[in-house]
Amino acid sequence: MLNPQLNKDGQLQHLLTTEGLPKAILTHILDTASSFVGISDRDVKKVPLLRGKSVFNLFFENSTRTRTTFEIASKRLSADVINLNISASSASKGESLLDTIDNLCAMHADMFVVRHSQSGAPYLIAKHLAEIGQDHVHIVNAGDGRHAHPTQGLLDMYTIRHYKKDFTNLTVAIVGDILHSRVARSDIHALSTLGVPEIRVIGPYTLLPAGMEQMGVRVFSDINAGLKDVDVIIMLRLQNERMTGALLPTAQEFFKSYGLTAERLALAKPDAIVMHPGPMNRGVEIDSAVADGPQAVILPQVTFGIAVRMAVMSILGGHSA
Amino acid sequence: MLNPQLNKDGQLQHLLTTEGLPKAILTHILDTASSFVGISDRDVKKVPLLRGKSVFNLFFENSTRTRTTFEIASKRLSADVINLNISASSASKGESLLDTIDNLCAMHADMFVVRHSQSGAPYLIAKHLAEIGQDHVHIVNAGDGRHAHPTQGLLDMYTIRHYKKDFTNLTVAIVGDILHSRVARSDIHALSTLGVPEIRVIGPYTLLPAGMEQMGVRVFSDINAGLKDVDVIIMLRLQNERMTGALLPTAQEFFKSYGLTAERLALAKPDAIVMHPGPMNRGVEIDSAVADGPQAVILPQVTFGIAVRMAVMSILGGHSA
Amino acid sequence: MLNPQLNKDGQLQHLLTTEGLPKAILTHILDTASSFVGISDRDVKKVPLLRGKSVFNLFFENSTRTRTTFEIASKRLSADVINLNISASSASKGESLLDTIDNLCAMHADMFVVRHSQSGAPYLIAKHLAEIGQDHVHIVNAGDGRHAHPTQGLLDMYTIRHYKKDFTNLTVAIVGDILHSRVARSDIHALSTLGVPEIRVIGPYTLLPAGMEQMGVRVFSDINAGLKDVDVIIMLRLQNERMTGALLPTAQEFFKSYGLTAERLALAKPDAIVMHPGPMNRGVEIDSAVADGPQAVILPQVTFGIAVRMAVMSILGGHSA
Repeated sequence: MLNPQLNKDGQLQHLLTTEGLPKAILTHILDTASSFVGISDRDVKKVPLLRGKSVFNLFFENSTRTRTTFEIASKRLSADVINLNISASSASKGESLLDTIDNLCAMHADMFVVRHSQSGAPYLIAKHLAEIGQDHVHIVNAGDGRHAHPTQGLLDMYTIRHYKKDFTNLTVAIVGDILHSRVARSDIHALSTLGVPEIRVIGPYTLLPAGMEQMGVRVFSDINAGLKDVDVIIMLRLQNERMTGALLPTAQEFFKSYGLTAERLALAKPDAIVMHPGPMNRGVEIDSAVADGPQAVILPQVTFGIAVRMAVMSILGGHSA
Repeated sequence: MLNPQLNKDGQLQHLLTTEGLPKAILTHILDTASSFVGISDRDVKKVPLLRGKSVFNLFFENSTRTRTTFEIASKRLSADVINLNISASSASKGESLLDTIDNLCAMHADMFVVRHSQSGAPYLIAKHLAEIGQDHVHIVNAGDGRHAHPTQGLLDMYTIRHYKKDFTNLTVAIVGDILHSRVARSDIHALSTLGVPEIRVIGPYTLLPAGMEQMGVRVFSDINAGLKDVDVIIMLRLQNERMTGALLPTAQEFFKSYGLTAERLALAKPDAIVMHPGPMNRGVEIDSAVADGPQAVILPQVTFGIAVRMAVMSILGGHSA
Repeated sequence: MLNPQLNKDGQLQHLLTTEGLPKAILTHILDTASSFVGISDRDVKKVPLLRGKSVFNLFFENSTRTRTTFEIASKRLSADVINLNISASSASKGESLLDTIDNLCAMHADMFVVRHSQSGAPYLIAKHLAEIGQDHVHIVNAGDGRHAHPTQGLLDMYTIRHYKKDFTNLTVAIVGDILHSRVARSDIHALSTLGVPEIRVIGPYTLLPAGMEQMGVRVFSDINAGLKDVDVIIMLRLQNERMTGALLPTAQEFFKSYGLTAERLALAKPDAIVMHPGPMNRGVEIDSAVADGPQAVILPQVTFGIAVRMAVMSILGGHSA
């Protein structure tokens, strides 16, 4: 199966990654999301698109924030949501993971929102569903290891399109801990597909994976050079908890070298927007003056994130295998 | 902003405290609650007043019991409820608390039910909501530090009115650990506003805050004197976990000096009612014979508590900023 | 009260155990469940039978899996579900347990789904509800200590009836840790009532309770002899966490002596079915080749389990005290 997230008719069957996702599908998700942005503003924020469907939030890695966004999106689509926080220990055996999936399928699950610390876990589940003839059950990858976080990538695309209208004349910089960031990966793939001509990554060499240039990305270790004339700045969260060894000196030194300050922001285009996937480490990767300043679109990202998740789930819910 | 819980039209915008809450609003809440008491008795216990609204239970301090009452009240109003248990650690920085609030507002929250171990946390949030132009989002204080627990205060008022009809001829005694009790504070303010002529607090001097007399409250360290001819006895829970240092000898000695026994209850008026906010420490602040006796109205308090919370939430949900 | 789970009209008031449950009621539950099996297959998997009812999942012993099945069943019946995970510590005092029950009744609970590590806890609650005049509140025992797990017993009966049609010509073997198994107990009582002529238990003597023969059960310590010509094999989970002392050598030795392999399965009738309550310890009590093989009906058990729980809850919800 070359692209396990598409069904035989080329429709979205699972959302596993933005890598290789056709431009038409990306755009369809963004267009659908835009119809949901209004709903969250209404008095009654619900539509019955997933009424009577059973959505399972399978969080093998704890994330109150992401789980909450999917829970809200599901409830606004009128689905029944069941939260399962499954400790890493009981999920350490692949066998046990698939037995869990088998059981939830037997309970007539319609959708799994999966967060897992191991890259590829949602693929393993998708492959298994196909093997056991349960591929009418849909998977949304809510973040797997360092690999992908496609709904974050999509909400970032929605935000950029909202403010910049056209992708084909943009320079976009992603700043920080590229090495550990599934957000960076999902953004780069989506930006490429949508035709962004210049994608830059900025960070210390220790936090840049090898081979970025081959992905068509320009690499900068000097933030001042990297931010020059960009339209969009995507700051990444410094994932202290993921770093092992001496990749970084201290949070203060990181801020000194790579933190986004007003002075650095001034190097970008005057109408550049500042994005961050949250939660922010103020004073580490971003200065509060910038985070709360007029160019930041960090909270609109959150708002669009609900609409994008509603879009993904309702599109999946409308497709069969 | 003198009274941050009222909007410019003098309507309830947030419920933060019973202190300074106008009598008309207090009475309106109690009257509204009385229309909800019947609903919980019906076969279908739901009304659609908050349908499609997103209520977040933000519990920075764990309390299964209080969270449950708000969850039931929300569901009976047909709201979508999302429970967030946020550990004290991640909430220790005020900044992080407000970033959390910003994010939930961006998800189009309609109401926050906030429990926090620090006095004033719900005020900080209310102030912030006004500053960021999000004061269409409503806050219900579900207990902040030693400061206030207004829905408990209101359900106590409901209970007293239910059994005694008129506040203006009552003597009400509050017994126990006044010093650490947000319930005592919320009760005293509400009782004063509703015109109770004599409010007494009874407890060891070490558990009585200074300056009670200036609040118009009579102070007794002798429980037998304090209970003489009262109409209402509100027992407080002995919050062992809150006491630091040697304020108290032992639970047994406390019971000996301040526990409510049948003999002591006989000092009150023959038709006096006995209240307790729960959960009870039987044999510490109250004897089981009294807790389960004919004068106890402790379980009706729980029933009325659901109705009062439904009333508060539906009133807030009907008001804009 | 001879049979505390029946009301004065002989209808199901609580589901506490399969022991002594009249055959007519057992059959009525299975028949009702069969009408629900189709619902979980539909696009909108909900029926409004418990709309507006408040179901409390009271889990004094943690079980994500069982809790999930009841949560799904409740939601598909349109009930409002509130999950309460109550640590063993705060529930160690019987008094505190009953105070919790009193409080939830005062909140107008309609049904308690109770899981408790102590045998008899749901009976204690049922007795208490009768004493306080709250027996319109229904209890479903979701597993109490080593005593009973009646919904598992019922879903096992449903599964057997589905595949074998008639109980009165069957030989059923239950294999493994009989001593610690509430599932075994619930199965044996239900199988007897439904007229199964031969019930066998198979396991090492250290894991067989005394007095099995008096229950009309044939006891085998040799699995090869025990499986001879059986129609139904019910494997039990090896509850490592429950075993204290040296009842068992090692998991490997257990598998060698009592694990269900293809060779051993061949001793049963050619159309014998293999059941397991889950979660399975593959390679301990059951070989993967059998667990995933054509005779296993372990996942259908899960599917039928949702329907059986919906049946029990809807039947209870339709009865008064």
